[in-house]
Amino acid sequence: MQLYGFWRSSATFRVRVALALKGIEVSQTAVNLEEGEQHDPAFLAINPQAALPALVIPGLGVLTQSSAILEYLEETQPTPALLPADPFGRARVRSLAGLMASDTHPLVVPRVRKYLTGPGGNLDLTAWRGWQVTWLTRGFQAMEARLAGDPATGVFCHGDTVGMADICLASVMAIARVFKIEVADIPTVDRIMARCDALDAFKQADPFKQVGAPATA
Amino acid sequence: MQLYGFWRSSATFRVRVALALKGIEVSQTAVNLEEGEQHDPAFLAINPQAALPALVIPGLGVLTQSSAILEYLEETQPTPALLPADPFGRARVRSLAGLMASDTHPLVVPRVRKYLTGPGGNLDLTAWRGWQVTWLTRGFQAMEARLAGDPATGVFCHGDTVGMADICLASVMAIARVFKIEVADIPTVDRIMARCDALDAFKQADPFKQVGAPATA
Repeated sequence: MQLYGFWRSSATFRVRVALALKGIEVSQTAVNLEEGEQHDPAFLAINPQAALPALVIPGLGVLTQSSAILEYLEETQPTPALLPADPFGRARVRSLAGLMASDTHPLVVPRVRKYLTGPGGNLDLTAWRGWQVTWLTRGFQAMEARLAGDPATGVFCHGDTVGMADICLASVMAIARVFKIEVADIPTVDRIMARCDALDAFKQADPFKQVGAPATA
Repeated sequence: MQLYGFWRSSATFRVRVALALKGIEVSQTAVNLEEGEQHDPAFLAINPQAALPALVIPGLGVLTQSSAILEYLEETQPTPALLPADPFGRARVRSLAGLMASDTHPLVVPRVRKYLTGPGGNLDLTAWRGWQVTWLTRGFQAMEARLAGDPATGVFCHGDTVGMADICLASVMAIARVFKIEVADIPTVDRIMARCDALDAFKQADPFKQVGAPATA
């Protein structure tokens, strides 16, 4: 498999972690979103949406959108499972994952920054940072509200096994860390993140360990 | 089942259509996002994230996040299927669904409008409309780029059977129609939308037919 990604892409982070947890070997290619490389004709032939990640499955084709890729990996390489077995539990995990990957992350991606700091939005860098802080804070606070006090929450977001919700939580936390945004009073999130941070699959996906990343945060 | 929604909520639209396609009876309750009813303590007890939709499954609990709900319905009531059988096809459908539900829709929701037209963004209504038009246009154009010329595209987004990608496409088109935003030069999208519009499940989910909606567009 060949993974096209960007060092600080939150969606690419998710795929890197899922592949590592499942022990799937992958070769990686960097596509620089800041320099617009996703609009190069060579990459558009891979993903006409000009978005990351893209995972090439030999003999089959190209997978895009991180949540679709995670579900594909779960269906084709079920062990270790990233979703629980029961439908209600699966829905809870997917819902927590969606809170991060659909409700939070899409607001702070490079194309939104380019729009808002350009003529359409006219935000200065302070206002842009306010936007980043607002949505990351609201996202993590909503995660905290849902996780804290729910008996289905365990050592990880759902029980004591790492899974899709943890991957999506950590993927948005990775962005917050890149931009040095700290959110206070989210003890359950912090506790789960400490467990994720201790796992090799998450360590290896650290944005600063990827090709194209700056030397330090 | 009890569905909490809002007349023009794109995410609620998806659940309405999926329930109707699968022939599942549901009772609906309106939560007015414009008036902030999602922050009422009574609703926060249902969904601490203060977001729609929420689907109460008797004896089990509350499901949230439209994509998680659609997957739950698919797993528990598999017929008619909203996903194809093969993993690669399923990933394609989920990816197209994500392009709409994760990459496009979260940018044009009420909480984003409130932020951008408030002190944090300071956009006037013309600039807000520019934002809406930009992201809906880019989203539909990206769908068009992916659908057109892909042999997996059929009468609907994936083959000749209506499914999750069509539901998500129509859910974002419903928003575009509410705000009278037309996107040109998306013939494949338009052709698929015409097929969706002809189905009862989509007709019944029309925002203007829901409780709390204004009389006309």
